[in-house]
Amino acid sequence: MLIEKIKSPADVKKMDMASLATLASEIRTALINKISKCGGHLAPNLGFVEGTIALHYVFDSPKDKIVYDVSHQSYTHKILTGRAEAFVNPDKYWSVTGYTEPCESEHDQFMVGHTSTSVSLALGLATARDIKGELGNVIAVIGDGSLSGGEAFEGLDNAGEYATNFIVVVNDNEMSIAENHGGLYGSLAELRAGQGKSENNYFKSLGFDYLYVEQGNDIESLIAAFKQVKDSTKPVVVHIHTLKGKGYSFAENSKEGFHWAVPFDIPTGVVNWGNGESYGGILGEYLMKKIKADPKVVVIHSAVPAGIGFFADRRKEAGKQFIDVGIAEEHAVALASGLAKGGAKPIYSTHGTFIQRTYDQLSQDLCANNNPATLLITMSGADGMNDTTHLCIFDIPMMSNIPNLVYLCPTCVEEAIAMMDYAIEQTAHPMAIRIPNGVAHRSAKFDTDYSNLNTFKIDKRGRRVALIGLGSYYALAEETAAELAKSGIEATVINPRFATGVDGEMLSELRKDHQVVVTLENGVVDGGFGEKIARFYGNTDMKVLVKGLKKEFYDKVPYDELMVRNRLTPGQIVEDVLAVLG
Amino acid sequence: MLIEKIKSPADVKKMDMASLATLASEIRTALINKISKCGGHLAPNLGFVEGTIALHYVFDSPKDKIVYDVSHQSYTHKILTGRAEAFVNPDKYWSVTGYTEPCESEHDQFMVGHTSTSVSLALGLATARDIKGELGNVIAVIGDGSLSGGEAFEGLDNAGEYATNFIVVVNDNEMSIAENHGGLYGSLAELRAGQGKSENNYFKSLGFDYLYVEQGNDIESLIAAFKQVKDSTKPVVVHIHTLKGKGYSFAENSKEGFHWAVPFDIPTGVVNWGNGESYGGILGEYLMKKIKADPKVVVIHSAVPAGIGFFADRRKEAGKQFIDVGIAEEHAVALASGLAKGGAKPIYSTHGTFIQRTYDQLSQDLCANNNPATLLITMSGADGMNDTTHLCIFDIPMMSNIPNLVYLCPTCVEEAIAMMDYAIEQTAHPMAIRIPNGVAHRSAKFDTDYSNLNTFKIDKRGRRVALIGLGSYYALAEETAAELAKSGIEATVINPRFATGVDGEMLSELRKDHQVVVTLENGVVDGGFGEKIARFYGNTDMKVLVKGLKKEFYDKVPYDELMVRNRLTPGQIVEDVLAVLG
Repeated sequence: MLIEKIKSPADVKKMDMASLATLASEIRTALINKISKCGGHLAPNLGFVEGTIALHYVFDSPKDKIVYDVSHQSYTHKILTGRAEAFVNPDKYWSVTGYTEPCESEHDQFMVGHTSTSVSLALGLATARDIKGELGNVIAVIGDGSLSGGEAFEGLDNAGEYATNFIVVVNDNEMSIAENHGGLYGSLAELRAGQGKSENNYFKSLGFDYLYVEQGNDIESLIAAFKQVKDSTKPVVVHIHTLKGKGYSFAENSKEGFHWAVPFDIPTGVVNWGNGESYGGILGEYLMKKIKADPKVVVIHSAVPAGIGFFADRRKEAGKQFIDVGIAEEHAVALASGLAKGGAKPIYSTHGTFIQRTYDQLSQDLCANNNPATLLITMSGADGMNDTTHLCIFDIPMMSNIPNLVYLCPTCVEEAIAMMDYAIEQTAHPMAIRIPNGVAHRSAKFDTDYSNLNTFKIDKRGRRVALIGLGSYYALAEETAAELAKSGIEATVINPRFATGVDGEMLSELRKDHQVVVTLENGVVDGGFGEKIARFYGNTDMKVLVKGLKKEFYDKVPYDELMVRNRLTPGQIVEDVLAVLG
Repeated sequence: MLIEKIKSPADVKKMDMASLATLASEIRTALINKISKCGGHLAPNLGFVEGTIALHYVFDSPKDKIVYDVSHQSYTHKILTGRAEAFVNPDKYWSVTGYTEPCESEHDQFMVGHTSTSVSLALGLATARDIKGELGNVIAVIGDGSLSGGEAFEGLDNAGEYATNFIVVVNDNEMSIAENHGGLYGSLAELRAGQGKSENNYFKSLGFDYLYVEQGNDIESLIAAFKQVKDSTKPVVVHIHTLKGKGYSFAENSKEGFHWAVPFDIPTGVVNWGNGESYGGILGEYLMKKIKADPKVVVIHSAVPAGIGFFADRRKEAGKQFIDVGIAEEHAVALASGLAKGGAKPIYSTHGTFIQRTYDQLSQDLCANNNPATLLITMSGADGMNDTTHLCIFDIPMMSNIPNLVYLCPTCVEEAIAMMDYAIEQTAHPMAIRIPNGVAHRSAKFDTDYSNLNTFKIDKRGRRVALIGLGSYYALAEETAAELAKSGIEATVINPRFATGVDGEMLSELRKDHQVVVTLENGVVDGGFGEKIARFYGNTDMKVLVKGLKKEFYDKVPYDELMVRNRLTPGQIVEDVLAVLG
């Protein structure tokens, strides 16, 4: 097999065209085999096999620097830069990450997983090259879907005024994760239809030279185009038309379904999504019901609509009451603020890792105006995605210190629904709801009145020790209480419900017969919920243990290990409580 | 005077063209008079007098809704919507804010002060209108400078695929705050040169219809154009060419100098900037020296280069080592990360309120990659800008809870310089330095080794009470210590230097002979520095008083009042300390 002989890009350069075609075929087979076992970004990688081969054939990495956007299409790049074994030897499948990673290879420039960053990051490399008087090409690879993100625009606009070598490869597969959204995609379609000719050339309007390659999965065409722009002294866009999912019929036919795939059966294309309940399904049903019941309800999503169960059928059914803005989280928050101001009932949902794009929009566009939009922050907590680039553990510090925002943390599905019902109908504040990654149910009754902000609820009254379990860590509070009971301590268990404030009255009352308060939150503790409790009790005798994750970019740490490292198992918490009680 | 008779837009509609021209002239005089006394955004308002008159002549606010970007050009709008007295009667000058403000008038849709938000916010209003089956025009006004912000692009791109009434007025005065930066501005120049015709039409590439008005300060031309697009059923851009500063020769000739002006003398154009030292001057000199000494140093700014003393001459002198990216904070952070990765020494500076745009870029592009860029966060603290839209009090919670970032807080100019010297040369981490608003000097020697992260320094060793004064509140710690001395308490005074961690060893050692630790930070306490100290001492007997601002969007609260309200005067702090000591 050719693929096994590739130790570095130099080996690619030696091949003739026929061998390169064989290599592409072998790579495609390896990708399908590995991803069918391990899961991963299938369709984006299948579409960019030839593009990557041609890049390494023409350019000289790492002297020439290639920066991948999202870097979820970088598997072929890894294969060609000394990491083929991780794709052909099942024992080594987990030896590389799913994104570019500078620790793995000098050919990887940055660790990224969010979209729309490659142009800006690459422009930094190009500028450093120029400042230092060095030579070489800098190439930013970006998908058409990522172009809708504001950061990509800012980068392109700035790059457009440089008189230097800067090559942007736009990998246009006519898709974001779902279909593309935005007026830009109309003009990209015009460019494709006109074989690169159109009066409305977005890239030229930003100052770029422009080259179109219709056969974006043909190695020879790509090599010719890249040779044409190599050593260019001006910024240039090479717009290549590719087929997402190419070479695996099920992925070609279901590009959204196979954008990212869990393990699947190759011959049948059956994906093993599992049968368990998920918040995707629960939210999809709930939001659709809301849409049907009230024409003022508008659900907004930014390019991952499957995350809330809005697959194509449901999107169609929702009509104008469902808006996918594309990858444009900043705009989504501002749009929601405008909708709320205009008297509609907007609900914007995105994963906890992607809401990071919107701090200023949350603060200024939404919260300073105190418009009553609802935000659903999904996949929250450490028990979900664990790539460094996709951690959902920083949202409480980021969001809960913004004035006017009310951040509600449900302990179970039933409470999540009650909180959403409340948030959508109230008009007092912007409300965010922290949707956990895991689905939990509670049979116990609970108070569903959230109008009195920052009122905590005591679910079980004990003494000496109080456990405040925020959202998905309410269950951990209950488990810890059971563990404490073994030491003869009947702990108080509290559901705080709100991450954005403290219930001063209740906390003061606890001082009568409690010595220790333990806060539990599913995220980093720095700047988070527990520290607010510690501050409240600062001038009292109450001892406070703030439990959660230490501030750190955890990289693929298994959840159980994460718990132990942060002393978050019920046994460890009891140990720490007993140590304080003395 | 006509201006005094304008009680609502209806009065504008009754006027003939000659009267409208007279009105424009009166408004211009009123603007110059008021701003020469009170300060404010002079040049942006002078350029949009005719545009605003024409908007209110043609459209029917508030049924038709006008959303202003930044809203620093909304003074004429305020005059025409019942608030003329605030511009002609000096006793009423302070009765309105410098930005749109829904509390003041139903004609004001949003309170904003950051750029690039109007399109998204207005699209929310338009979508709410459509969902509710209502009629009316929605108009977003945006300046050419604001177009470089990613949020504006995201909004335009999304709007471009709507088939509904949505009008964007692009007020093109060929300027941002300083000159424009970005390839887009080349194609805007082509459009102006071609009287609206060009092959590279950015707005059309995003799906908009397009109309050009060369005479953007001519009321009749503007009225004709706005009538043409009124009740449009498609998104349309009206691109108007205006003169920034129009009608005041000193502003026309010094557009950057008069973008925002403190009080000035009308006949001579002499602006009273004051003679005191400012960080603008100090940073400008320092950074220029660095640039000259080391070709790898690159200073990045996003459109307010005067904030660090980089006026036109200095920008020219710095050459390629100074990059103004335009209003594009997200890109600026990613660019800095790329530059650091490429071996340059990037220094990105922006005000504390504008860094809010970059949470995700700080987290993912910069800190997850741990690239050693330097950030200067200027105007920090509550003692500077006090408009709700420009508060610089949220940066500690926003930034200091991101892993890998080191946030240094200097107590004086000398320490700021030492910290910058260190940050620029080290390669271990991304470093941010919190530049205070006010200039302070200290003659005392201090340790300038910052390589041992999170090591605090005891400047004065006392007992019972320790005062930890972060950055610009170190002086408050000293004042409070002097006040405590009157009660016979010799307090310990600590300069923590780092906002991003705690010195566990020192804090533990304090437990020997201290009962109370007071933390002082110039910003909101929620999610901030003091809470980290409270958490650290949570399981001990140490009492902690966390002092700073309560989480709130303060609106033009005078600094002294802010201090009293938050119990931050030395006297109040001593009272609170004594209450805890009992």
